[in-house]
Amino acid sequence: MAAAPRLHAVILAGGAGERFWPASRSRRPKPFLRVVGGRTLLAATLARARAVAGSDRVWIVCGGEHARAIRAESGLPARRVLVEPRRRNTAAAVGLAAFRIVAEDPEAVLTVLPADHHIPDARAFAADVRRAARAADDASVLVTLGVRPQRPETGYGYIQQGAPAGAAHPGLHRVRRFVEKPDAATARRYLKRGDHLWNAGIFVWGARTILEEIEAHEPALYRALAPLGEVGRRLPRAVLERVYRRAPSVPIDVAVLERSRRVWTLPVRWHWSDVGTWESLASELGVESGHSRVVAGKLVHDDAGGNLVWGRPERPIALLGVEGLAVVDTGDALLVTRLDRSGDVRKIVSELKRRGRSDVT
Amino acid sequence: MAAAPRLHAVILAGGAGERFWPASRSRRPKPFLRVVGGRTLLAATLARARAVAGSDRVWIVCGGEHARAIRAESGLPARRVLVEPRRRNTAAAVGLAAFRIVAEDPEAVLTVLPADHHIPDARAFAADVRRAARAADDASVLVTLGVRPQRPETGYGYIQQGAPAGAAHPGLHRVRRFVEKPDAATARRYLKRGDHLWNAGIFVWGARTILEEIEAHEPALYRALAPLGEVGRRLPRAVLERVYRRAPSVPIDVAVLERSRRVWTLPVRWHWSDVGTWESLASELGVESGHSRVVAGKLVHDDAGGNLVWGRPERPIALLGVEGLAVVDTGDALLVTRLDRSGDVRKIVSELKRRGRSDVT
Repeated sequence: MAAAPRLHAVILAGGAGERFWPASRSRRPKPFLRVVGGRTLLAATLARARAVAGSDRVWIVCGGEHARAIRAESGLPARRVLVEPRRRNTAAAVGLAAFRIVAEDPEAVLTVLPADHHIPDARAFAADVRRAARAADDASVLVTLGVRPQRPETGYGYIQQGAPAGAAHPGLHRVRRFVEKPDAATARRYLKRGDHLWNAGIFVWGARTILEEIEAHEPALYRALAPLGEVGRRLPRAVLERVYRRAPSVPIDVAVLERSRRVWTLPVRWHWSDVGTWESLASELGVESGHSRVVAGKLVHDDAGGNLVWGRPERPIALLGVEGLAVVDTGDALLVTRLDRSGDVRKIVSELKRRGRSDVT
Repeated sequence: MAAAPRLHAVILAGGAGERFWPASRSRRPKPFLRVVGGRTLLAATLARARAVAGSDRVWIVCGGEHARAIRAESGLPARRVLVEPRRRNTAAAVGLAAFRIVAEDPEAVLTVLPADHHIPDARAFAADVRRAARAADDASVLVTLGVRPQRPETGYGYIQQGAPAGAAHPGLHRVRRFVEKPDAATARRYLKRGDHLWNAGIFVWGARTILEEIEAHEPALYRALAPLGEVGRRLPRAVLERVYRRAPSVPIDVAVLERSRRVWTLPVRWHWSDVGTWESLASELGVESGHSRVVAGKLVHDDAGGNLVWGRPERPIALLGVEGLAVVDTGDALLVTRLDRSGDVRKIVSELKRRGRSDVT
């Protein structure tokens, strides 16, 4: 077996802060929320990143509006917080990180982690990322972790796994194809067949490999990013500005993964959630029929149960005869939503933004 | 026809402020809430009282904790705000008012009005009270207004009307009996038969007549009240204290009306509501399936409708997929209740009081 490659963790902390409105805001998006386990999702992600990559090789890509808070929360040195001048989706963010890291560590293998997912078993996570990193390094492939479905979920994209990658890489599979969010019947079929995995947006690849693949499959993005290869460890603001003015806005999945022939997947069995809606959070917290959970605030009456409550300290909240709701009270705004409708919270935020209510979005 | 009697209006402003929690509180019970038509229920009641009795003959009976606010809101001279040293239900309040008023107007006819009911047609109301007053004066009877039922309501007590009172008093009937809140089947039967009226707690009687009837049917109360007959227009605090220490706590309906043989009823056709619950208020405001109403606050999203919202100025409230709810946000407390369960709000208040949360009750 080859020596373990040098793993760097790249945390993507974009996010518009819309899904958890009114708790999340433009200036305080989901990674900053303490929703599970008493620490923020970002803090938990940082802990996982440090466990796999070591404290000195953790990087964050974020927008300028969050850079200060992220530096404060993460304790990372400023040079490892890569600030995007504007939002340009994940392909640009990945390319930026790859160019920057390759400048000081040409053999680096990167693991790309969304900042706001929930993975309770950090140990199992680290073991699988290391296994994926060895394969990525050894075979110069792009590895995407694929989560074994636990239910016929229609809210996630899927990865259909292909043939095993070979005896040298036990557990890894080639990817047959990526599929968009399915309808309910298709999701049930995927679950039954067993060869479809949730696309968790967690990737492992050599820094140089991903840059080669960006060049091959999204050349416009590569041309935009190329000046980063000349500035090396410095990131002059003017260069970054020019890069981001020209960079197309596209997810790395679409730009590269769905096109490349060098994509493998590592099916993993640990619990993962993107905590994408109030309903998803409720599920993570164990809200079920008759059983409510309070993230914050003081629930003084709740006779039906099955609700998720996010209030303010000591302020009494009483629920009477209601169930299956999220009640989110932030002092300056209030949301009452059926959990199974909470995917539409973003529409409310859009409405509020359109009406100029930046004070509460 | 006899000359019109001198009508005095006696507004009973007791109330513990529990039914409209968290908008109502011990210190700000229902009469002080602006729930319908932009003014408080008390202000609307005062307007009705002045219309039937004239400004100089309006009286209010209330507890000490509300006396200051009531004097401020009503503009009544202090001598016409009768402050009970403790809560002793309606028979004592009626007796106190009768003794006090008879001291300066021995021939007075009183109309007794709850402070927190909703009667939109003040003109029809006044006409019927005057008609009842003529009968009360003429025949020395106790007249209770009976509201023609508009639905098979199980939340009200009923009056079964008996034979017509006679040609001299068209429209008035003897009362056959008072009945407690019925079950749903009984309420439907009452509605069908047409001889059962809602007991609205609005009474008209001679001051001396009601004192005679209290003496006859609730002698313990009469004995407790009797010192009031000696102090005349003065109401020394020590006398009041002694009276209220001894007065039994009993509703006037139970103490007198259900026992007396001198009770008539005047069936009335105008709209009346005791606005006794959030559900009742929602009905008054026209909340129905798909159609929400906002008493206060800023409803920025409400896709299902059928909700009652009571918020705070400019603070956005968003409802997603919910209907048939009352959402009441007072800044220091929050209630989300199914409208058809809002009768249980009092239980929440009791719980909070038991836990010593006088700050929010």
